[in-house]
Amino acid sequence: MPARNDSPRTGSATPRSGQTRALILETAMRLFRERGYDRTTMRAIAQEAGVSVGNAYYYFEGKEHLIQGFYDRIAAEHQVAVREILARETDLEARLAGVLKAWLDIAAPYHEFAVQFFKNAADPDSPLSPFSPESEQAREAAIGVHRQVLAGARTKVPDELRDVLPELMWLSQMGLVLYWIFDRTEGRERSYRLAERGARLTARGVALARFRVLRPLVREVHELFTDFLPGMTRQLPGPGRKPVR
Amino acid sequence: MPARNDSPRTGSATPRSGQTRALILETAMRLFRERGYDRTTMRAIAQEAGVSVGNAYYYFEGKEHLIQGFYDRIAAEHQVAVREILARETDLEARLAGVLKAWLDIAAPYHEFAVQFFKNAADPDSPLSPFSPESEQAREAAIGVHRQVLAGARTKVPDELRDVLPELMWLSQMGLVLYWIFDRTEGRERSYRLAERGARLTARGVALARFRVLRPLVREVHELFTDFLPGMTRQLPGPGRKPVR
Repeated sequence: MPARNDSPRTGSATPRSGQTRALILETAMRLFRERGYDRTTMRAIAQEAGVSVGNAYYYFEGKEHLIQGFYDRIAAEHQVAVREILARETDLEARLAGVLKAWLDIAAPYHEFAVQFFKNAADPDSPLSPFSPESEQAREAAIGVHRQVLAGARTKVPDELRDVLPELMWLSQMGLVLYWIFDRTEGRERSYRLAERGARLTARGVALARFRVLRPLVREVHELFTDFLPGMTRQLPGPGRKPVR
Repeated sequence: MPARNDSPRTGSATPRSGQTRALILETAMRLFRERGYDRTTMRAIAQEAGVSVGNAYYYFEGKEHLIQGFYDRIAAEHQVAVREILARETDLEARLAGVLKAWLDIAAPYHEFAVQFFKNAADPDSPLSPFSPESEQAREAAIGVHRQVLAGARTKVPDELRDVLPELMWLSQMGLVLYWIFDRTEGRERSYRLAERGARLTARGVALARFRVLRPLVREVHELFTDFLPGMTRQLPGPGRKPVR
C-alpha cells in the first residue's frame, strides 16, 4: 500500500490538511450510511463535503481507501481506549473482555452502516474485507492490541505460541464482529455478553497451552487460517487471488 | 414448523403431487438465481411453473418455505451421497473429508445462487439462516451425518463429548460453506483443499479428546455456540429473538 503510507494520505501533515481529510472521511461515512456504499460516488462525497473532486482524490485514491481510512481510525481509537485497562489489569480474561467491550463501545455509532456494508466486507477476496492485503495496516494494529493483552497478563504463554495466539484471538474477535453486525438486541446487549463469554473461554484455552501435547494443534489451526485467508499470508494454495468483481 | 410436517408440504403423498412440488422448487430456484430472492414473487414462480398461485401455496406456504425445501433436498441428497464412503471407511479423517467433499459436489450447481443468497442467509436471526429454528429439519439431518462420521470411526470418542462433537463438526462445516460461497477458484479447488485440511485438523482434535483436561473446554465451546446462536437452543441469553426485518 505505498499510497497510504505517503503523506498526505496517511494523515495530517498540517492541522489544516488533517481537518480536511477528517471532513471527507466523516462525509463519506454519512453518505455510505444514507445511500449505501455502492451508490455513493467520490463526486457526491466531494460535493457534500464542500471540497473539489480533485481535492477529495488528493486525500483518498477512491472509495475503497475511504473504508481503509475508516478501519484505520477505528483501530487507532481502540488502541487509545484500551490503554487504561491494559495498564491496570493483569488477569487475562479481564484484559481480553475489556478490549473486546471497548471495541463494541467504539463501533456502536457505526452499527447501522456495518449492517449495510457487510455484503461488501464479507467477501475475503474483496479489498474491503478485514482479511485483505489492503486492510493490513488496520489488521496489524488490531493484532497488536491482542499481543499486548497477552504480554501483560499473568498467564504464561509458551514461546512457540507467542506469535500465533494474538492472530487467533483477533480472528475470534472477527467472529464477535460478525455476531455484532446481526445483533438487534437493545444496546447490542447480546454482543457484550458474547464478548465476556468469549474472553472467559479464550483465557481457559490459553491456560491449557501449558500442556505441550496441545501446542501442535494450535499451530495447525493458525496455519489453516493463514493458508486460506488472503492477506493473512503471502502464499495462497492453488491459483492466486482472482480479480475482484 | 407444523406445516412442513403435514402432507402435502412434506413431500410426495402421490407421485403426481411429488412431481408438482419438485417442479415448483426447481422453478423457484431458477428464478431466485436469475432475478434474486428478494425480487421473485410466489406469483411469478407459479406462473413460470405453469401452476396456479393457489397450487403453489398448497405446496409451499411462501418463499421462505421454498428455501427450507431446498435445504431439505440438499441434506437428503447429501445423506445418500455419503452412504458408500461411510460404509467403507473407518479412518475419521477420511470419513470427514469424504463427507465434506460430497457436500461440495452436491452444492456445486448452486454456487451462483449461494453467492447471491448469502446476504439473506448470513443473518442468524433470519428464518433463512442455517441456524434458525425454521431450518431445524435440514440442520438435524446434517448433524446426523456427522454423528455417523464419528460413530463408525476407529477413533474412540468419550461419552461426554458424543453429543457435542457432531454439532461442532457441523459448525465447522458451516465455516467451509462460508468459504465456498466466496471461493472463485476454478472448480472451487480451494474449498476442496480446505475440506481436506479441516478434516485432518478435526481428526487430530478429536484424538486429543482422550486427554480429560480438554473435555470441559470442548463442552464450553459448544455451550457458547448453543447459547448464542438462535435455533441451536431453546433459551437465548437476554431479550429473545427480535422480529426479522
